[in-house]
Amino acid sequence: MLDQRALPAEETWIRCDSPAAVADCIRTMAVRGAPAIGIAAAYGLALAPDHERHGAADLLRATRPTAVNLAWAIDQVLEAPDPLARARELHADQEAADRRLAELGAERFAEHDRALTHCNAGALATAGFGTAGGVLQAAWERGCLSQVWVDETRPLLQGARLTAYELERAGIPFRLVTDSSAGTLMARGLVDRVVVGADRIAANGDVANKVGTYPLAVLAARHGLPFLVAAPVSTIDPETPRGEDIPIEERDPGEVSAGLPAVNFAFDVTPAELVTAIVTEAGVLEPPYEEAIARVARR
Amino acid sequence: MLDQRALPAEETWIRCDSPAAVADCIRTMAVRGAPAIGIAAAYGLALAPDHERHGAADLLRATRPTAVNLAWAIDQVLEAPDPLARARELHADQEAADRRLAELGAERFAEHDRALTHCNAGALATAGFGTAGGVLQAAWERGCLSQVWVDETRPLLQGARLTAYELERAGIPFRLVTDSSAGTLMARGLVDRVVVGADRIAANGDVANKVGTYPLAVLAARHGLPFLVAAPVSTIDPETPRGEDIPIEERDPGEVSAGLPAVNFAFDVTPAELVTAIVTEAGVLEPPYEEAIARVARR
Repeated sequence: MLDQRALPAEETWIRCDSPAAVADCIRTMAVRGAPAIGIAAAYGLALAPDHERHGAADLLRATRPTAVNLAWAIDQVLEAPDPLARARELHADQEAADRRLAELGAERFAEHDRALTHCNAGALATAGFGTAGGVLQAAWERGCLSQVWVDETRPLLQGARLTAYELERAGIPFRLVTDSSAGTLMARGLVDRVVVGADRIAANGDVANKVGTYPLAVLAARHGLPFLVAAPVSTIDPETPRGEDIPIEERDPGEVSAGLPAVNFAFDVTPAELVTAIVTEAGVLEPPYEEAIARVARR
Repeated sequence: MLDQRALPAEETWIRCDSPAAVADCIRTMAVRGAPAIGIAAAYGLALAPDHERHGAADLLRATRPTAVNLAWAIDQVLEAPDPLARARELHADQEAADRRLAELGAERFAEHDRALTHCNAGALATAGFGTAGGVLQAAWERGCLSQVWVDETRPLLQGARLTAYELERAGIPFRLVTDSSAGTLMARGLVDRVVVGADRIAANGDVANKVGTYPLAVLAARHGLPFLVAAPVSTIDPETPRGEDIPIEERDPGEVSAGLPAVNFAFDVTPAELVTAIVTEAGVLEPPYEEAIARVARR
């Protein structure tokens, strides 16, 4: 897989020949993004000999706690008679879901829209076409996007390193800003909508996503801007009732600062009341989310 | 003066022997913080020969547009019969104002308070005791502060480099967080109040401060937390009616990213309605701010 830690400076590929090697890549964020780590884990599990499959599943499941796609994909492969075929199927399904939700999301855009996004939810994050990034790409192809504001997304700079890299390759005009800038951009009337991905969506519509998403939603609500979450149905967890039930990963403080005491929550929770719509491949969900989610969520 | 760009790695002192040298230090942020650049400009102007004083004042005034302390201090020295004596007086006044407002601000703290602050408004920012940083120090001395959450403050990391450095030297417990973390810290009940400095306060109480301050104020309001602004009266500009009239400096995009298109607004504006109190040496101002400010503002 492509080592996302080295991007955009270097395109380094990592060859994984065991579940443990894939687990390392997920844990160290060589691969990241909720759908992408699900697909990576699926292929990783398919690498396990039959008698080691359950141990490998446990190993992969323990790598990161927040994105529900990971556990879901592992379960899918674990139950399949042909693990590799099932992994390939999940991968193809992800790509199809991305394409479909991208088009549905793009329908929400108006001409000359300026969208703001956080972290990376493009092709790199899904092993497909991207969720929020796919929506932006589809809106661009329809002529309904004039510019993307890209939050740099500290501490690991997924916005500055990955989203900017993807937008540049796609020829979509963008401007990088610090994560603190969204408020003043909105107050100046420079943003038309916010589009982000998700790591887990609870049954009530609460959304866990990269830390910094919740402040964006609060600001968007204050400025009357649509706040769109783009995610495949596999990101919805009907067994997690509310956002407060989502396990939030706390990562190494060293990612924030070498040497100083720091706290590094990797995700935050945006309450459903602040989410204008959740764009999935099964349709664009709108409040009340409990009902909308119950209709589309996997069982 | 101490070169703040090199902190905390190195304590380098810069010797300035001309107004132009001081102007360079202000422009390049070797010295920063609204009160501190006012004091630096005052001493810088005192270095000018009599016949070059007006040109030197123009040069110093043009360095940075947002902090009103700069223009104010320059005017004070320009009108003084003994420029150096007046600069020293402003410096002493700043220190006295800091001490007084720090005590007034600390009175607002309750036992075991956990405060969140942004950027640096400590001694380094004022050439005195600090504004927001002074309030934190005074609250700590009263036993009314258990911990400070320090926003790292991208792009120049004044929080991670300067506030953390000051708190560490003062022995005040702190934790560094990314600028995106405040929302989740508040949602988890880990913050009791927000305390920040200011670069200019308009006559109606709108506050310009380091970009990222406005999102904090919006989040504090949502979570019912006090949002305190600490600043000397010299930061209040009675001639600027509202926040939208404050000139906001846009700095080099290269500070955000080398090579990528970026936008770098250095400050944002927090509307008065989100400010719980403005702590000055002349008293703690509360809404309605127009009247409170008219009572204390310099003429």
